[in-house]
Amino acid sequence: MLTDATVESWLREDLGHHDVTNDVPGDADGRLLAREAGVAAGIDAAVRVFEHLGVDATPTVEAGDRVEAGEPVLRTAGSARSTLRAERVAVNVAGHASGVATATRTAVEAARSVSETVDVAATRKTTPGLRGIEKRAVAAGGGDTHRLDLSHMAMVKENHAADVGLETAVERVRERASFATNVEAEVERPEDAVRAAEAGADIVLFDNMTPEAVRRGVESLPAGVLTEASGGITVETVPEYARTDVDVISMGSLTHSAPSLDYSFRVE
Amino acid sequence: MLTDATVESWLREDLGHHDVTNDVPGDADGRLLAREAGVAAGIDAAVRVFEHLGVDATPTVEAGDRVEAGEPVLRTAGSARSTLRAERVAVNVAGHASGVATATRTAVEAARSVSETVDVAATRKTTPGLRGIEKRAVAAGGGDTHRLDLSHMAMVKENHAADVGLETAVERVRERASFATNVEAEVERPEDAVRAAEAGADIVLFDNMTPEAVRRGVESLPAGVLTEASGGITVETVPEYARTDVDVISMGSLTHSAPSLDYSFRVE
Amino acid sequence: MLTDATVESWLREDLGHHDVTNDVPGDADGRLLAREAGVAAGIDAAVRVFEHLGVDATPTVEAGDRVEAGEPVLRTAGSARSTLRAERVAVNVAGHASGVATATRTAVEAARSVSETVDVAATRKTTPGLRGIEKRAVAAGGGDTHRLDLSHMAMVKENHAADVGLETAVERVRERASFATNVEAEVERPEDAVRAAEAGADIVLFDNMTPEAVRRGVESLPAGVLTEASGGITVETVPEYARTDVDVISMGSLTHSAPSLDYSFRVE
Amino acid sequence: MLTDATVESWLREDLGHHDVTNDVPGDADGRLLAREAGVAAGIDAAVRVFEHLGVDATPTVEAGDRVEAGEPVLRTAGSARSTLRAERVAVNVAGHASGVATATRTAVEAARSVSETVDVAATRKTTPGLRGIEKRAVAAGGGDTHRLDLSHMAMVKENHAADVGLETAVERVRERASFATNVEAEVERPEDAVRAAEAGADIVLFDNMTPEAVRRGVESLPAGVLTEASGGITVETVPEYARTDVDVISMGSLTHSAPSLDYSFRVE
Amino acid sequence: MLTDATVESWLREDLGHHDVTNDVPGDADGRLLAREAGVAAGIDAAVRVFEHLGVDATPTVEAGDRVEAGEPVLRTAGSARSTLRAERVAVNVAGHASGVATATRTAVEAARSVSETVDVAATRKTTPGLRGIEKRAVAAGGGDTHRLDLSHMAMVKENHAADVGLETAVERVRERASFATNVEAEVERPEDAVRAAEAGADIVLFDNMTPEAVRRGVESLPAGVLTEASGGITVETVPEYARTDVDVISMGSLTHSAPSLDYSFRVE
Amino acid sequence: MLTDATVESWLREDLGHHDVTNDVPGDADGRLLAREAGVAAGIDAAVRVFEHLGVDATPTVEAGDRVEAGEPVLRTAGSARSTLRAERVAVNVAGHASGVATATRTAVEAARSVSETVDVAATRKTTPGLRGIEKRAVAAGGGDTHRLDLSHMAMVKENHAADVGLETAVERVRERASFATNVEAEVERPEDAVRAAEAGADIVLFDNMTPEAVRRGVESLPAGVLTEASGGITVETVPEYARTDVDVISMGSLTHSAPSLDYSFRVE
Repeated sequence: MLTDATVESWLREDLGHHDVTNDVPGDADGRLLAREAGVAAGIDAAVRVFEHLGVDATPTVEAGDRVEAGEPVLRTAGSARSTLRAERVAVNVAGHASGVATATRTAVEAARSVSETVDVAATRKTTPGLRGIEKRAVAAGGGDTHRLDLSHMAMVKENHAADVGLETAVERVRERASFATNVEAEVERPEDAVRAAEAGADIVLFDNMTPEAVRRGVESLPAGVLTEASGGITVETVPEYARTDVDVISMGSLTHSAPSLDYSFRVE
Repeated sequence: MLTDATVESWLREDLGHHDVTNDVPGDADGRLLAREAGVAAGIDAAVRVFEHLGVDATPTVEAGDRVEAGEPVLRTAGSARSTLRAERVAVNVAGHASGVATATRTAVEAARSVSETVDVAATRKTTPGLRGIEKRAVAAGGGDTHRLDLSHMAMVKENHAADVGLETAVERVRERASFATNVEAEVERPEDAVRAAEAGADIVLFDNMTPEAVRRGVESLPAGVLTEASGGITVETVPEYARTDVDVISMGSLTHSAPSLDYSFRVE
Repeated sequence: MLTDATVESWLREDLGHHDVTNDVPGDADGRLLAREAGVAAGIDAAVRVFEHLGVDATPTVEAGDRVEAGEPVLRTAGSARSTLRAERVAVNVAGHASGVATATRTAVEAARSVSETVDVAATRKTTPGLRGIEKRAVAAGGGDTHRLDLSHMAMVKENHAADVGLETAVERVRERASFATNVEAEVERPEDAVRAAEAGADIVLFDNMTPEAVRRGVESLPAGVLTEASGGITVETVPEYARTDVDVISMGSLTHSAPSLDYSFRVE
Repeated sequence: MLTDATVESWLREDLGHHDVTNDVPGDADGRLLAREAGVAAGIDAAVRVFEHLGVDATPTVEAGDRVEAGEPVLRTAGSARSTLRAERVAVNVAGHASGVATATRTAVEAARSVSETVDVAATRKTTPGLRGIEKRAVAAGGGDTHRLDLSHMAMVKENHAADVGLETAVERVRERASFATNVEAEVERPEDAVRAAEAGADIVLFDNMTPEAVRRGVESLPAGVLTEASGGITVETVPEYARTDVDVISMGSLTHSAPSLDYSFRVE
Repeated sequence: MLTDATVESWLREDLGHHDVTNDVPGDADGRLLAREAGVAAGIDAAVRVFEHLGVDATPTVEAGDRVEAGEPVLRTAGSARSTLRAERVAVNVAGHASGVATATRTAVEAARSVSETVDVAATRKTTPGLRGIEKRAVAAGGGDTHRLDLSHMAMVKENHAADVGLETAVERVRERASFATNVEAEVERPEDAVRAAEAGADIVLFDNMTPEAVRRGVESLPAGVLTEASGGITVETVPEYARTDVDVISMGSLTHSAPSLDYSFRVE
Repeated sequence: MLTDATVESWLREDLGHHDVTNDVPGDADGRLLAREAGVAAGIDAAVRVFEHLGVDATPTVEAGDRVEAGEPVLRTAGSARSTLRAERVAVNVAGHASGVATATRTAVEAARSVSETVDVAATRKTTPGLRGIEKRAVAAGGGDTHRLDLSHMAMVKENHAADVGLETAVERVRERASFATNVEAEVERPEDAVRAAEAGADIVLFDNMTPEAVRRGVESLPAGVLTEASGGITVETVPEYARTDVDVISMGSLTHSAPSLDYSFRVE
């Protein structure tokens, strides 16, 4: 949930105590324009930025829409002073979120070019303060949001398994987790997948494995157990992983390394 | 200034209401390791994340230090539960800031390869909520922080000039701005530079011009007037602009499109 | 996650601008004592309250421990003024959380008296501002935390199903939900349970049904589909539902109507 | 004062980062309905919850009104998505506050059945974060709000009196307290009441005494000194205390142990 | 209560995003020194400012102590960078609060020069954000804090009385106010004082009257009713009002117009 | 930037948990009136206070306008209850800001009576929490806002110079500061001014010097170096400093010691 307090903190960090530049009278209309092609996201957040300063703002695209260079994504009307003060923050948040959505769409298309069913997911490697915005941008790009926070899904990690044995580790987490919460077990070798599933894991994660190893792991499992591959997978390598029949491919780069989509704001 | 409230909001968005995964007893030591070479920044912020949950954290590098793959940047000691809960947020903020510092260093080195005096600066195109962290990361990378917020420097924009004439626009802003505040005037054509300087601008900004045009503008100005070039300049084109004798080259990509530097956290 | 900002807001609402009553010099030791038997929870929150004002506080029980009348649950040492200013808030939060844990334990024991495997769960009917504390108190009492927030599990409600048909409603939600997120479908009649499961629901919720109807619904389902009963179930009726072989019985009263456990704070 | 920041924190804790369940298009009208008879309170807070998400909400009862099962207490109109996201929080706060008001009304009626003038008051034993809402719910139920925070009234406690003598303790607090602030003295024995009053206490509190002892204390005092009884008084025993001619009977259970009043929200 | 969030907001507004001036290595000791004689207050707040940045700070005077020019009021030890960053805010808060305490002491001494029992009180005319600090500074200066907030004491104003008659106005407020809350009635003419008292006002306020009129009002009242005079009373006119036998003289200027006490901070 | 969170904190500190005084039905119109002549500032903040509680408020003067006794500065319309609850805070903030603007106007007029070009500036000696409001009030009064925060301008202080030599100290700060940031050097003796300017200081500050010494310092400098005098300068001594040809005279008293301008609020 994007809070008013967050929107206010963004504006505060950009405005400072006494802005002389934008201290202009009257009203103005404006448009937020894409300067390159991509996938729109964060437009609702940009709307919130303008509205926080009392400027009317109306989106002209929906999250997930493809936009072309020169296409407007929102229109504003209101005090010129407030419009100019909101402009930079609105551009920044829309550019950031749309960059995530665009990177996601590219990765999803690369994966789907070889498998109709595979999902591409983001991770918890998000930019601090922007978890919700980035996760929703991933959804706008056609990706899977994956674990939203630590409490959303329980994870059995390698070091748990190393300490007490994989089966015990899975059982202990299963016991502490709510029935509403899935349990995912990270495995180091394809042959551990079956053990994790039999111990009660809902999902098996193949971390930092070759596509070949992932495939062997996936094949070893009965129907009904979800599988995920992660670890250094890029838009170049995602098709190879998509061919393994793994259910989900997760990529931290969707959120932590997507370049911003270029927007500009024009006052009319 | 990185506030406790901000650090707390980062942890809150990642933790949720009931984390089962990391509910482990005892103490643990840990290290934050670079997984690729780059320039360290944001390590102080990562320290604050651990400390907020009562975990001792000690940086082993300083902001601006070059780090190699495998090199530790901070060490932790304290409750295992709290360490594991802080880990992801600490990695995320260090990775983000170090990515900005690394991109800045690369751009600075590219520019300095052709000019010993040119500065490379960031812009206000920062990630919402991270203005201070990104600006300090730019400084760590050897870049210039430029305008920190709207109140830090007054800007005369093209549309002001179009309305009332360049000279009048500069004079009006100069009059409203404090003696402590510099005034920068954006010009569209090299030949406007002198008019802006004579009207009282401390700095002249050549926006979206070719290197050739920037050079002509720079040459037209007397000593004592600072010059800046901006607009779509990349790490590839920065040397061409550096050859124009412009004082400052500013690049939004340093903050809005730098890929994260890869870090991982290891419990020992 | 219990934030410092929350702890501070609790203290602020109780202290006001100028407390004359507790403006006393020197140091004091104190103990938080149960005045009736129950299950301890929220003691970590009470510790945080004292620590926020610089008073050392050490718990002497763990969350989920049974406490008897007269038994101390934490000890404090520090400034008398700060201890007295923290006391009421600490008692209030420990009493509230322990009340939830105690009511949960009672309901769990009633259910387990007739079924070894049934779980008793809380709901989202929590006291505003105390979601995390109440959910963790439920866990301390031996209950299941259930859905932590709206994003934790996706729900297909009756009105969705009424609009588009049960199967379509489940499929649409399943499509939008992450692989990490379970989908639960609410059914009005036992015979709808199979349709919901076949459409892809991970969990079927029997809302406001008699134990008899719940039993029929449960029996109709294949293995691997979780079942839940809810709606006005009390500690008196929970055994009847536990006999239906339903997996989970959820009760809003655990969080919204549990009487506080009586604690008092003694300065020594 | 119920702040926007508080309302926002309630919504945030329930919503999480990505709610799939309620991501529905269009507008909807809704009603908040009592499902059992009681006394309405907190409806203004429920209105604030809807309005925070941009949904129009209009109360149909006033604080303190008696409501019957099936009776609407507020109506909403606006975005279906926002209405569904606000619903649970609105029900929770209205249910909690109305539960407090209902318990208060019951206690007041029990006391007034034997004394026309006695007041029933709440204490500082409130749910953390909800001080103002609970105090105003007590007022809605016909109760007295008593001390709103530590700064509102100065209290002489038994341990003060034990250290320096009752008279000195009262005088010292009287001296430090503003003329705007009442001073109440807690006494252990009926015979101490006169001493407290003569030393300057505005109010004498009989703590944990039998009705008989309270009566003796009350009778010993001159007109113009207010009297209060507290300590484990329940709705069953409140009439006995009301017969003692004490002015005020205070009960922590009104705020810390009142069961929630059952409400449900219906979309039309 | 001075919250950490408030202290942090003070530091944030002074520090900005990138402070170059104070970016110095090593540790430093420092002293906060009075540069003119006055009454110390707010030193605890200054301590909090240093501690918030991790600098040890120890007060060397207590609130209410008279300080002379050149006298230290607190000592610091810690990081030079953090000490220099906290300095200005610490000076500002100590100077402001000590200014209030000094003005209060002067007014109290002027009043006490003619009456041993009269109290001088502040009002709700405080600087936004500093209610608690200013009220405690008034107490440090020997003044009465008066009404801390709107909920602390109930007031019957002239316009209430004009609408429904003075007696009815007092009775209505008395009825709605808790037994813990005093009721003060504002009167326009001395002859209304008795009516207000008989209707149940605990305190009668003579607003904007001459000393002569106040005296007549005071004399008309029976013992046990407190009296207050307010409205444009200055340190010059306070003795005249003190001679009227009024109990309390309140002055907005103590908080809204007291000049700051001059402090400086020295690093050693 | 005046945030909603700040406005809310002002209202919260004045309102408390249960205001009985202003619990009145219906609507009311009101006016905020100056009760003495001065310069208006902070009226926009007063508007925000009313609007935060849903009351319409319209300013009738602009920041910097001269107002006479009896002149309205804003009008309100809306709920009587909310209007009365906002009134005191609105008066307090308008009075405080207008007091700063009025003191500034007086100082500016005194300085301009002897020099047409000299500027009078405020300092960082502002009231904690009110930096932006006070700086904008200084601008409304015709003063210069000077350094808005530590990051706005870099300062070379005497103790830096004492450690490493004035030239080195200036060069080091110049190197670390952005091109967007001015560097000011504080000098102790007039003869140091030239050295500071030659080392790269944009502005030279003569601190705690006689007008005679300031004049010598100013005369020693080439054109293009700005000069500032500060240190204990009052409205009485400001003309003497204005005659020295110094560019800027800064006075802490404008913000930390200006008496409030007297306003009252009338409900009609």
